[in-house]
Amino acid sequence: MPGRDVGSNVGRPLHELDTPALLIDTQVLATNISRTSAIAKEAGARLRPHIKTHRMLDVAHQQMAAGAQGICCAKTGEAEVFADGGIDDVFIANQVVGAPKLRRLQSLAERVRLAIGVDHPEQVESLKHAFFDSRSIDISIEVDVGQARTGVSDSSSALTLARQVLDASGLNLRGIYTHEGHDYNARDGADLATIADKAQTHMLAIAEEVRSATGSSCEVSMGSTPSLLAGVFRNGIDELRPGTAVFNDGSHANFLGHTDWCAATVLATIVNQPAPNRVVIDAGAKALTSDRRGPSILKNTGFGLVVGRPDATIVSLSDEHGVLNVPDADSYRIGDQLQVIPNHICPCVNLYDYAYATSNGVVTDIWPVSARGQSQ
Amino acid sequence: MPGRDVGSNVGRPLHELDTPALLIDTQVLATNISRTSAIAKEAGARLRPHIKTHRMLDVAHQQMAAGAQGICCAKTGEAEVFADGGIDDVFIANQVVGAPKLRRLQSLAERVRLAIGVDHPEQVESLKHAFFDSRSIDISIEVDVGQARTGVSDSSSALTLARQVLDASGLNLRGIYTHEGHDYNARDGADLATIADKAQTHMLAIAEEVRSATGSSCEVSMGSTPSLLAGVFRNGIDELRPGTAVFNDGSHANFLGHTDWCAATVLATIVNQPAPNRVVIDAGAKALTSDRRGPSILKNTGFGLVVGRPDATIVSLSDEHGVLNVPDADSYRIGDQLQVIPNHICPCVNLYDYAYATSNGVVTDIWPVSARGQSQ
Repeated sequence: MPGRDVGSNVGRPLHELDTPALLIDTQVLATNISRTSAIAKEAGARLRPHIKTHRMLDVAHQQMAAGAQGICCAKTGEAEVFADGGIDDVFIANQVVGAPKLRRLQSLAERVRLAIGVDHPEQVESLKHAFFDSRSIDISIEVDVGQARTGVSDSSSALTLARQVLDASGLNLRGIYTHEGHDYNARDGADLATIADKAQTHMLAIAEEVRSATGSSCEVSMGSTPSLLAGVFRNGIDELRPGTAVFNDGSHANFLGHTDWCAATVLATIVNQPAPNRVVIDAGAKALTSDRRGPSILKNTGFGLVVGRPDATIVSLSDEHGVLNVPDADSYRIGDQLQVIPNHICPCVNLYDYAYATSNGVVTDIWPVSARGQSQ
Repeated sequence: MPGRDVGSNVGRPLHELDTPALLIDTQVLATNISRTSAIAKEAGARLRPHIKTHRMLDVAHQQMAAGAQGICCAKTGEAEVFADGGIDDVFIANQVVGAPKLRRLQSLAERVRLAIGVDHPEQVESLKHAFFDSRSIDISIEVDVGQARTGVSDSSSALTLARQVLDASGLNLRGIYTHEGHDYNARDGADLATIADKAQTHMLAIAEEVRSATGSSCEVSMGSTPSLLAGVFRNGIDELRPGTAVFNDGSHANFLGHTDWCAATVLATIVNQPAPNRVVIDAGAKALTSDRRGPSILKNTGFGLVVGRPDATIVSLSDEHGVLNVPDADSYRIGDQLQVIPNHICPCVNLYDYAYATSNGVVTDIWPVSARGQSQ
């Protein structure tokens, strides 16, 4: 990996590439990384980017060079790939369950500074047994601030878990964390700011309860790109864990009102024009995913945005076909290439073995998606 | 590939596997393959399964052994993998555009009996130039019978392309083909049968026009699993190209009224129970895709069906989380495994490097998804 003669494409202009292909604009990426670092600094928080968006070592090393304190990931397999790639501070912001995975955690803990999320006493019990006589790990307690996915919903549950962790010899209490993912449902900018502020207030109150009840320190970690971009930060937020901010995507472009911050696109070719106002590209669900957002501030009208073609709408996707309605039919020809900004970039990147790093329309490097498929 | 110690799982019971993992029940698979062969035989048609569903050589060889005359695929990259794997009769039922891909087709044509789809004179022109002095290839003309995706919509356009192909020295006219994919929108069984019959009638009429106007033979090829399962076949259908029938999936289970024919599942682990009636599994959009069907005969109510758990609904997916509403909360525990039948199995399989072939709850083999990611 990468297969065939992919490396020979370095130095080539985009129009010579075979499609569909994943492209990363290195200038936009660099700007996104700088902006995110600056936002965290302004908020007085450390930055721990979530690498589920890119799953690429090349990108993680740029984030670390720009001041990230470590990485966040969702899966043990991701953690292993990034540990192997030289990242030595890893937070698996998720619950890790099952004997095979606990053995893998033990091995990881020997190599990196490792933290794991918990939201139930049974998880703590398993981790306690796995780490009672080995190198200790950090534990962060997940709090549900409104997404209704994972996490404890009240301070007494958080306190129970905190005490359980503090009583376990191989476990250190790091703090509490949340993914305020319900901010993706915000109606508008004001609603988004309200959600972000409420989430932080809730987290700060629980952390204070844990501190006063246990005497332990308790970091507060928040993680969601819309809230990061909303720029609302209370004092006392220790860590931010945005994922999508590194590339942004079609749904975030709708929220931002422009596509200037979208670093990742899928290069596709028009392969059919079966009707005057319909063209078909060689990128379908297996190249873009069929994810859609909304109704919310991130609402999409189609299955991706076509760069420089506001008149085009990707109205449907099959496995390998994307169907576009194009009112201005005369400006589309079979063989033309289009760049599509995917609606949801995280699962999209996970479809590719590698990305083309590009600058001014020329391939500058090949970046393996090193953790592609690492969902175990 | 497969990575780590995957091979050591052969002989193990499912509950010892790490998750999420793709499982194929070999008995259900064998029955599906036999059934599909029998349906084609009964219809008096040859069978050319679409391998986009499984992308696995192990499965394709079983289909060939059961009487398939060759395979159908959507992408040049799939064709290359299956040609390398010993399948010598390949129909790319799609339009192939661009200089890099035409070079790859030339190489493929040296190795296998190759056919390509066309629906526009420009594609034929390109193929004509690519094959004028090399081994010839077969061409099939795509007809749109109602899906409004690709294909010509009338007989005069089909006839124009047929004449263009017949005039090109390196191109042989094989016939016409369609994907009657609008049958996925059928309201009920009667509507499905009507759509299937109308599609066939339309195709047979166009083929007859081509034959009488050109004096050439003209095969008729149809390809869609719902229509296949509807069992309506007119005389004169030469070829059937079902894809999903090999595994079926959650949407087809809704249409069938049972899950007995579903050969592919995703094994997941319950990692959280943050509320009495909510559990979370370690399989999200990167393990299941977020595809949904309907409103139609194939309508899904959630993001997959949970085997043996009709009370559970997968209400939302994040990248790596699946959230389930479970009224019978006491029967779910953290650490329990669930098997999920994905809504749309084709893009789901494409997320995995390998599948576990299983029999009676035990792993019997590891099948690489050899064409995973081959969307170019």
